[in-house]
Amino acid sequence: MLIVQKYGGTSVGNVERIDAVAARVIESKKAGHDLVVVVSAMSGETNKLLEFAGFFSQTPNHREVDMLLSSGERVTSALLAIALEAKGYPAVSMSGRRAGIVTDTIHTKARIEYIDTTEMKKTLDEGKIIVVAGFQGVSDNGEVTTLGRGGSDLSAVAVAGALEADLCEIYTDVDGVYTTDPRIEPKAKKLDKISYEEMLELASLGAKVLQSRSVELAKKLNVNLVTRSSFNHHEGTLITKEENIMEQPLVSGIALDKNQARVTLRGVTDKPGIAAEIFQKLADCNVNVDMIIQNVGYDGTTNLGFTVPQNELEVTKQAMSELKASEIMQYDSDIVKVSVVGVGMKSHSGVACKAFSTMAKEGINIEMISTSEIKISMVIQAKYGELAVRALHSAYQLDK
Amino acid sequence: MLIVQKYGGTSVGNVERIDAVAARVIESKKAGHDLVVVVSAMSGETNKLLEFAGFFSQTPNHREVDMLLSSGERVTSALLAIALEAKGYPAVSMSGRRAGIVTDTIHTKARIEYIDTTEMKKTLDEGKIIVVAGFQGVSDNGEVTTLGRGGSDLSAVAVAGALEADLCEIYTDVDGVYTTDPRIEPKAKKLDKISYEEMLELASLGAKVLQSRSVELAKKLNVNLVTRSSFNHHEGTLITKEENIMEQPLVSGIALDKNQARVTLRGVTDKPGIAAEIFQKLADCNVNVDMIIQNVGYDGTTNLGFTVPQNELEVTKQAMSELKASEIMQYDSDIVKVSVVGVGMKSHSGVACKAFSTMAKEGINIEMISTSEIKISMVIQAKYGELAVRALHSAYQLDK
Repeated sequence: MLIVQKYGGTSVGNVERIDAVAARVIESKKAGHDLVVVVSAMSGETNKLLEFAGFFSQTPNHREVDMLLSSGERVTSALLAIALEAKGYPAVSMSGRRAGIVTDTIHTKARIEYIDTTEMKKTLDEGKIIVVAGFQGVSDNGEVTTLGRGGSDLSAVAVAGALEADLCEIYTDVDGVYTTDPRIEPKAKKLDKISYEEMLELASLGAKVLQSRSVELAKKLNVNLVTRSSFNHHEGTLITKEENIMEQPLVSGIALDKNQARVTLRGVTDKPGIAAEIFQKLADCNVNVDMIIQNVGYDGTTNLGFTVPQNELEVTKQAMSELKASEIMQYDSDIVKVSVVGVGMKSHSGVACKAFSTMAKEGINIEMISTSEIKISMVIQAKYGELAVRALHSAYQLDK
Repeated sequence: MLIVQKYGGTSVGNVERIDAVAARVIESKKAGHDLVVVVSAMSGETNKLLEFAGFFSQTPNHREVDMLLSSGERVTSALLAIALEAKGYPAVSMSGRRAGIVTDTIHTKARIEYIDTTEMKKTLDEGKIIVVAGFQGVSDNGEVTTLGRGGSDLSAVAVAGALEADLCEIYTDVDGVYTTDPRIEPKAKKLDKISYEEMLELASLGAKVLQSRSVELAKKLNVNLVTRSSFNHHEGTLITKEENIMEQPLVSGIALDKNQARVTLRGVTDKPGIAAEIFQKLADCNVNVDMIIQNVGYDGTTNLGFTVPQNELEVTKQAMSELKASEIMQYDSDIVKVSVVGVGMKSHSGVACKAFSTMAKEGINIEMISTSEIKISMVIQAKYGELAVRALHSAYQLDK
């Protein structure tokens, strides 16, 4: 098999950890696999460099920031290659450029455009382990770029896609994807498999294991993704196509998102285009609106509710007051969003019903509801968040 | 004027120092000059990275060492560019690759083959300050290389040569080139000008300001080199062509080399080829032989004396005993070499005579003598080293 492995900052946090990663890579090599390893900067390194830059400017030139930050992953990739060679396994480090990762020119948050795999394929053919500096690429005009938050995961997924790898393993400090946050519900179980779609819902709902961007790319490139821990040998969670998962569970997980605030506009003039106007305004201000609910009122006006990230609430207030779309505006940041995710919902009725009745049984008032094919999200008062998660986890028998 | 400035590790040792360098660069820019700045890694950074590598292997792969080490200068170049922009001066950092510095493929001690100045010229035309990551280049097959000890000085000289810069300023923590080591002779004076040839002699004799390699390249490329301190605004020392120095002093400086050991072979069979055999053997063992003296003895045998660096004495002993070239071998590491350097010697007689009489006046026995067109070197007992330097400094009136 050709396996792409990605190790994050804590996994390569010091030379001892890098040594452990080398041992781990060699286990896979000994098992007969070809290997491309993608590494992040040693933990703390990127922040140190950003602090240095911050000494000079709060808004350093993005091109220079990329030149600065890309050095962190170069260091780790060279060190891991040296560690592998020291253990007798020929290895070659590659910068993003050398690995052929070509991006657009948007410094500090570049998008990968394509990967020229010539050099990697040649090196794999020579039987060598490749160690790619994650998080970085090179733009068409030859300048170093970085891919933004979660960039090393993206590098790994993109490389796996371009090389048509059999597996892309993302190593972090957690064992995989859980039915819910184990700090809230100790009975939470690690999932063996989950579909891209479910993982996307969970990621966007605050599960920290993987960023949506990487899951989306894996889905697009049809990359079998595994997330697992570099600190133990537990099996991780496979994220794959729905049809690769034989038995679909009704529900895969329960997510809790504490970073939401609710906005309610009452008495909005009910004329065509008013909603468009409101959400255009918010888009212009880069506010990420999540749930949207609109109800017709009694007097030809409309009540409009939506949620936004808490840290974007101030901008939202500002935008709404400029727009004067409604006389009565209410804001509530003391809410959470609890979500039930599962592809099984598509073919089973009654899933939503169980969620609502569970809330009722616990005496929790549901303030907003939004559903998709594979997700039910409910906004409730913040103080009930953990209780709701545990009740739903039990109701859908996720602890079994 | 187009000026290339190079700042070493202590000059860019922390963000405050980098800020001071930025201010200094801007002074030159304000004076109307175009500027290319070459920087080293922050002091301590290269050693830290080498220590990391040393954790895994005492003989890390050279290609990987270059990938590792080259990151240090990239960081400094980006930070200085950010500092310059923060002060309102457009600046662009460039890796060795971006600056067009093409080397051979000998990792960790690559030689510069040529410089493609396209990108640098374009950037200078845009009025921007260029900050080049020193010490590094790119080989023809696209891999990062480093230039070995003193590599950033080399980068600066090579860039200055390729761009036909008017001046190449090397900033360190000393004010320039002195008539002798001020720690030995407090009356030592800073030289305003010195010829490449004299500087080469002084560098090879242990003056720490510049490495021979950089001076040789400056001579070859006809680069006017200035060495000065980044910690004050004193004028430095200009190193240039002999014909650019109007009034040639008789003697420019006195150098003391404590790192020599003397080898004496007595009773060497005086047959053709014996000397060649001995020195070939030493060359095979990578011993750098310096002074060589041969005298015919009384009985058809020859006495042969030479000096080698102290840390190569053991290898030399080994080689000599294998060769069995002579019955009597003597080794003395308790010696020093004191040298008088000056292009004025060429046209003035009596310079050597004064050196010898000065030694005699101080009661110092000269054990070996070797002369070149612009240098007289004498091997004496180590304990007389400082005394000899002071006496010669005074005899040639270098304190005037």
